[in-house]
Amino acid sequence: MTTDHKAETVIIEREFAHPPEKLWRALTQPHLIEDWLMKNDFAPVAGHKFNLRGEWGGVLDCEVLAVEPHTTLSYTWNHVHENPAYDLRSVVTFTLTPTSGGTHLRMEQTGFRPDQTQASGGARFGWQAFFDKLETVLLR
Amino acid sequence: MTTDHKAETVIIEREFAHPPEKLWRALTQPHLIEDWLMKNDFAPVAGHKFNLRGEWGGVLDCEVLAVEPHTTLSYTWNHVHENPAYDLRSVVTFTLTPTSGGTHLRMEQTGFRPDQTQASGGARFGWQAFFDKLETVLLR
Repeated sequence: MTTDHKAETVIIEREFAHPPEKLWRALTQPHLIEDWLMKNDFAPVAGHKFNLRGEWGGVLDCEVLAVEPHTTLSYTWNHVHENPAYDLRSVVTFTLTPTSGGTHLRMEQTGFRPDQTQASGGARFGWQAFFDKLETVLLR
Repeated sequence: MTTDHKAETVIIEREFAHPPEKLWRALTQPHLIEDWLMKNDFAPVAGHKFNLRGEWGGVLDCEVLAVEPHTTLSYTWNHVHENPAYDLRSVVTFTLTPTSGGTHLRMEQTGFRPDQTQASGGARFGWQAFFDKLETVLLR
């Protein structure tokens, strides 16, 4: 991994006061994913293809890459667009680590090209907002 | 216009306690549009093509259709997708009417196919949220 490559990765980490099992449910059950992320037809099965759909008509094309219950979840996060600046081919990986107070959640999104600074900047902002909503969902 | 066609249109109306000139600025100045809607390279010129970009990578393809300062703004709101259920070709029209207390804003989004009930339902929800943010932006 080169320094250039690292610059194209967005990493968001947060400590949640809930056990990994509870976070895992929020990351893998479609109706819960919808509550903090987007509408979806997700299934926790490697190779499963699904879409994430924004309220306003945008759609991401995704495929599950890795599923290790309560530990790791990884899927592609792609958006095909004729304008290269907006054409996004990325991979999102969630890593859950149990802590004394709950769970440390790490989200890594890789695949931004060096010229896609707006996309990676938007992702940084977006994931913070998604994590805020996730916290609210977990409190219910 | 048939009843079927009406069923494919989302209309959101709200009264704002600000004059039409102020609302018009929020609808047409890129840095203000970004604050309540999405990142963009909008310009209030018929024929201008631009993109609206969600934080998470989704991108809409748009083209300005009509500009009547302080009164009417219309643009396409398209999202090309290979899955017909997610392929969206719509037109958004804002109509501003002065009232005694400010401005009546009407947003009409047309073009949803009858089978795109998820897209039109999402738009209904999404525009309410966008209008909520617009209210906050106008208070600054």
